[in-house]
Amino acid sequence: MIFPFFVRADWQPSGLVIKAETFARLQKEYKQYPLMETAVSKMKARVDAALEEDIDVPVPKDPAGGYTHEQHKRNYIAMYEAGIIYQITGENLYAEYVKEMLMTYAQMFPTLGLHPVEKSYAPGKLFWQCLNDDNWVVFSIQAYSFIQDFLTKEDRQWMEQQLWRPYAKFLMDENLKVFNRVHNHGLWDVAAVGMIGYALGDEALVKYSLFGKFEELEEDPEKAAAGFYANVNELFSPTGYYTEGPYYHRYAITPFLVFAQVIHNNEPERNIFQYRDGLLLKAVKALVQLSDDEGRFLPYNDAIKEMSIKAPAAVEAVDLAYEHEQSVHLLAAANLQGEVKISLGGLIIAQELAEGASHRTAVKKSAVLTDGPAGDKGGIAFLYPEQSENNGLLTLKFTQHGLSHGHFDKLSLLFRYQGHDILQDYGAVRFVNVKAKEGGRYLPENKNFAHQSACHNTLIVDGKSHFNGDFRLSSQKFGELLQFDTAHQDYQVVTARQQDLYQGVDMYRTIIQIEDEKLNDPLYIDIVKAESEEVHEYQLAYQYKGQIMSKQLETYEAAKSWKAMGANHGFQYIWEVGKGHAVSQDSRLTFLNGSKFFSLRTHVDQPTEITLGRYGANDPENNLRTEPAYFLKKSGQDIWFVSTIEPHGFIRSATDELVADTESQILKISREVQENDIQLIELHHDNGNIYQVLVASDFSLADHRSKLNGREVEWEGPIYVNIYSSGI
Amino acid sequence: MIFPFFVRADWQPSGLVIKAETFARLQKEYKQYPLMETAVSKMKARVDAALEEDIDVPVPKDPAGGYTHEQHKRNYIAMYEAGIIYQITGENLYAEYVKEMLMTYAQMFPTLGLHPVEKSYAPGKLFWQCLNDDNWVVFSIQAYSFIQDFLTKEDRQWMEQQLWRPYAKFLMDENLKVFNRVHNHGLWDVAAVGMIGYALGDEALVKYSLFGKFEELEEDPEKAAAGFYANVNELFSPTGYYTEGPYYHRYAITPFLVFAQVIHNNEPERNIFQYRDGLLLKAVKALVQLSDDEGRFLPYNDAIKEMSIKAPAAVEAVDLAYEHEQSVHLLAAANLQGEVKISLGGLIIAQELAEGASHRTAVKKSAVLTDGPAGDKGGIAFLYPEQSENNGLLTLKFTQHGLSHGHFDKLSLLFRYQGHDILQDYGAVRFVNVKAKEGGRYLPENKNFAHQSACHNTLIVDGKSHFNGDFRLSSQKFGELLQFDTAHQDYQVVTARQQDLYQGVDMYRTIIQIEDEKLNDPLYIDIVKAESEEVHEYQLAYQYKGQIMSKQLETYEAAKSWKAMGANHGFQYIWEVGKGHAVSQDSRLTFLNGSKFFSLRTHVDQPTEITLGRYGANDPENNLRTEPAYFLKKSGQDIWFVSTIEPHGFIRSATDELVADTESQILKISREVQENDIQLIELHHDNGNIYQVLVASDFSLADHRSKLNGREVEWEGPIYVNIYSSGI
Repeated sequence: MIFPFFVRADWQPSGLVIKAETFARLQKEYKQYPLMETAVSKMKARVDAALEEDIDVPVPKDPAGGYTHEQHKRNYIAMYEAGIIYQITGENLYAEYVKEMLMTYAQMFPTLGLHPVEKSYAPGKLFWQCLNDDNWVVFSIQAYSFIQDFLTKEDRQWMEQQLWRPYAKFLMDENLKVFNRVHNHGLWDVAAVGMIGYALGDEALVKYSLFGKFEELEEDPEKAAAGFYANVNELFSPTGYYTEGPYYHRYAITPFLVFAQVIHNNEPERNIFQYRDGLLLKAVKALVQLSDDEGRFLPYNDAIKEMSIKAPAAVEAVDLAYEHEQSVHLLAAANLQGEVKISLGGLIIAQELAEGASHRTAVKKSAVLTDGPAGDKGGIAFLYPEQSENNGLLTLKFTQHGLSHGHFDKLSLLFRYQGHDILQDYGAVRFVNVKAKEGGRYLPENKNFAHQSACHNTLIVDGKSHFNGDFRLSSQKFGELLQFDTAHQDYQVVTARQQDLYQGVDMYRTIIQIEDEKLNDPLYIDIVKAESEEVHEYQLAYQYKGQIMSKQLETYEAAKSWKAMGANHGFQYIWEVGKGHAVSQDSRLTFLNGSKFFSLRTHVDQPTEITLGRYGANDPENNLRTEPAYFLKKSGQDIWFVSTIEPHGFIRSATDELVADTESQILKISREVQENDIQLIELHHDNGNIYQVLVASDFSLADHRSKLNGREVEWEGPIYVNIYSSGI
Repeated sequence: MIFPFFVRADWQPSGLVIKAETFARLQKEYKQYPLMETAVSKMKARVDAALEEDIDVPVPKDPAGGYTHEQHKRNYIAMYEAGIIYQITGENLYAEYVKEMLMTYAQMFPTLGLHPVEKSYAPGKLFWQCLNDDNWVVFSIQAYSFIQDFLTKEDRQWMEQQLWRPYAKFLMDENLKVFNRVHNHGLWDVAAVGMIGYALGDEALVKYSLFGKFEELEEDPEKAAAGFYANVNELFSPTGYYTEGPYYHRYAITPFLVFAQVIHNNEPERNIFQYRDGLLLKAVKALVQLSDDEGRFLPYNDAIKEMSIKAPAAVEAVDLAYEHEQSVHLLAAANLQGEVKISLGGLIIAQELAEGASHRTAVKKSAVLTDGPAGDKGGIAFLYPEQSENNGLLTLKFTQHGLSHGHFDKLSLLFRYQGHDILQDYGAVRFVNVKAKEGGRYLPENKNFAHQSACHNTLIVDGKSHFNGDFRLSSQKFGELLQFDTAHQDYQVVTARQQDLYQGVDMYRTIIQIEDEKLNDPLYIDIVKAESEEVHEYQLAYQYKGQIMSKQLETYEAAKSWKAMGANHGFQYIWEVGKGHAVSQDSRLTFLNGSKFFSLRTHVDQPTEITLGRYGANDPENNLRTEPAYFLKKSGQDIWFVSTIEPHGFIRSATDELVADTESQILKISREVQENDIQLIELHHDNGNIYQVLVASDFSLADHRSKLNGREVEWEGPIYVNIYSSGI
């Protein structure tokens, strides 16, 4: 069934993502705003270089990376950019170039069977996989729209018949399982077909792309089983979190924003950017939230650590979002990106930054991103100090597994401070596009090491990854947020639980961030409790980064020769550097990272085996970075780890050699059981304060009461915090 | 014998280092030049804060770091800065502060015996060592000069009698062995006494400080046995190199420049800055030469790697030098420093940078710094590509040992590329001012590891450091430059020799830097020859930095457990990571550093044992950075190592994941003996060129002839280079 064509009265022939009126503004204004001037002049230089070359539209033959593959990629970029430069300069040679190339494709297209490299589950025509054909269409159909006024009616009709309609048919009907799939590949397919639909004014193609292709169309966005709406409904949580994590979030977001912009420009009455309480904009803001102050993404799950919001896809996303919400956080992100794409949002950003709009107030505040389409499958809590100059970020992750790119990292921490990784997530073991590293694919150590609990800042039970490393089991699990309390001036608290972290083992973790006026740097208390009916070996891991300045690990002995810490679950990749057994003294590791000192201290309430490790065992191909780790091991049924994570002191500069406060400033940590099974944790600090924490041992959300400093206190939820001045 | 006082007609009462006319200019102009405005306003803020505090001149009691020690340091800085602010603002409260503090010192001084902490070989009065007293005087006598017009004649006379004359007497007569010593401590002592001399107009003190204190004064600067001139004569080579290396050069240079400026201001007829062909200015320029494009010093000998020309002492030196030579290299250094000190030179720099003076032409050119007072005791050769955007620096060091801070690093390389250490010098094992690291002193691993040949880019014979690690023997040795040829467009050559590197072993090393138009990056050929009558084990070490992408090391096996490579000469600190035995294939290591790939390839002309190492064995206190090393070992009498050091490809950015040329582009390396004992070395490159090198096997400087590509060629000196196009 084909719907009748619709051609809208307000349809702008000059664009899908970029409207004619935006080009009209660009022509007049782009030179005034440095970021946009740079974007246009760089693009024009690339286009002028492309115009020097003969048009080359080879018969598809090669797999990814091969000549015909790369040439068709170059071609769609060249057409897209030449079309934009035509619109901005009005010079016909650019339109002529696009026309000639499109004609060549239109001539060839009907002659093409499936791509000869049939390795993909969904092969394409120009490329070995349909996904790349989708990319080709998303850019080329825009190029077509940019030169519509240059084409004759006959040209347009011919291209429609030769190229666009058969391509849409191929991408939709001959790839129906992809088209109707709720997945990143499905989304690209839907966007390609939908953009052909809008470009040709074909209501049927548009509706299929929005709601999926079925005999009976369900046109309620909330109930769509496939198509654009279903992807929006399924792939982001209500806070905009993408379950695979930020590295793939960045990759996945482009077709969402691009196609949404096309919908907005052509059918504004759909209010697509307001859909589900502005979910698409939230997805962009979540991506910004998931980056640090230098724009680098938190490398949760499989992730290249250098990836940042400066990635082209993230620039595109921020720019498109900014048209619809001029938030200071998006502007700050754009400022960090240092470039704009050519779009209305990009133009507004370039103008505002050129006119000195302030984005300095974009101080990130503590927040929670939830996971799952309904937001009820765990999440990530972000703690930021209120004093932004400390530039710290501590996160507690209690999300779902994260599909095939997920890691066994339940209730793990990540801590960045003043631009440095302090407690790190290793990221992915992969060297993108490096031939010698298996052509840039994920290396075996990615699954065998980077996925495992042993290389995360979390608890490991009996030497095994969470859920015994069972991906299917882990995929059914997620943590729960028990407490998120950021309303106090001097401290913030987050508590989460993971039930059945291992069979019969529950885990709780509380992070308290303290930043009272007596502290130069925020101080973090990390409380981990594990509960079980059985006796287990519990190992708390800190993947610290830095060089050790001093350590207090009783009976510590450095290994004379290094052997792997274990045989599996990632421990086979970690050298045992040395071992100690703490019985009486709190264990302490002080290390230097950049120009800052950090101490990790853990209260010793029972004999604790302490191991220093270093990545790189069983690594003949040198795939791993040689970085350190720190493990504390206790045995028992219910155990507690009470630790402090303490930034202190500094090296003011290497050139004036002024150094201060190189030692931990905590005098003593204690934990005692009070009445009503309440734990009293106290940190005696050199500044005269005692930081007191009352914890209900069962972490229940009920009302609790206890005595503290001779007074009765009452609170709701697991944790109560008090700062007690000893009067010094 | 005391000379009669002299008071010069042109004596400026307002300053020693800074003249009254400079203050007059500063008053008018400083606000116009941002760097000077910042310097003045920051200093004024510090002084205003100091004025809030009560004056505190405690009776000397504590050692370095203790309360009275730190307070007297604070005091001389406060007086110096208050004096400057008085001169700039004309406000009496600043002069009053200086006066009051000086009066307090003048009152106390006659009551002081030697400092109670008598640990030093030359104890002071206010401080435990006379060196700190010298520092105190150098700053405080300037403060005194700044407020001369504010003091009454009576005040001045009283201070002279109570403080300055007895202090000069103490520093000179009671510390004569220091005063007459040619050494950094001696120089500070001489500067302190000389500045009192100029301030009081006492010709005797001045002359002693210039020529040393002897019964009969030798007033020929070139023949001075002690005093300022002797220090200038002895401590710098004619090119301005300071034999202890750049880290100590930076420290030592301040009193030279400061006291020279005082001499210049008061006795311009001495032409002190022209002395010995401008040696003091050369010393400043050498310091700049010894820094990389980011200003970091090459960490030769004991050195903190982060130290740079941004150090306060280096800023002072560059500023003072700039008054006397407005060179573009000094201006570029000042620009990198990003600050100026308050002085005439600093004012000129601030003005020129504010007015947009160009320092972009300050491209560093290949050069040699010689070592030794006469410049005949070895040196360092610097190779820079002509194409400055490649921003590479390769140095070959053939200096003297470098006194007690020297390393066993004869004919060692250091290679920086695009701001990264590629072949590194470890620097010092020391954490300045970190209490837990032995209070910041040099750690035992400094001598036992960082000094040793095994952690340098050099040749190690029979597993021992150069000269068997004998400091006294090494102190008598230095290398010779055989060839330094930078006149060709496509290549540059440096060759040096070290005789008796070990008993009966001579070593030669040639570096050829090629940068023809077919290369994207310069290519380096590293030719090492060792000669002996006996059979030895020769081990060439490369202290590369980066992560291994691929390696071709025949029969390589990674160690299942890591053990130290050896028991002494530094090898006890290096883990053996894995081993291979190359018999037929050239060995190759490709690594990634930053966004650049590097390949180290070595021609295998005889069985070669190859070891990958990593620092950190036998390091229970974690004093070492865990960094990699690469060793190639051959046995024989005369051996050759022909290697290429090849930057290639890039990761354009982590965010667009565009990666190119990840593999070495050299097809083949060969070495063959020709007639007349000439070696023909050929590199076949993927770009179609064959890079050919003819080497006289004895490295003699004579005329040589050989056949090359069917033609007869003749050359003088050890090396002839030819680039042969295979016509591809």
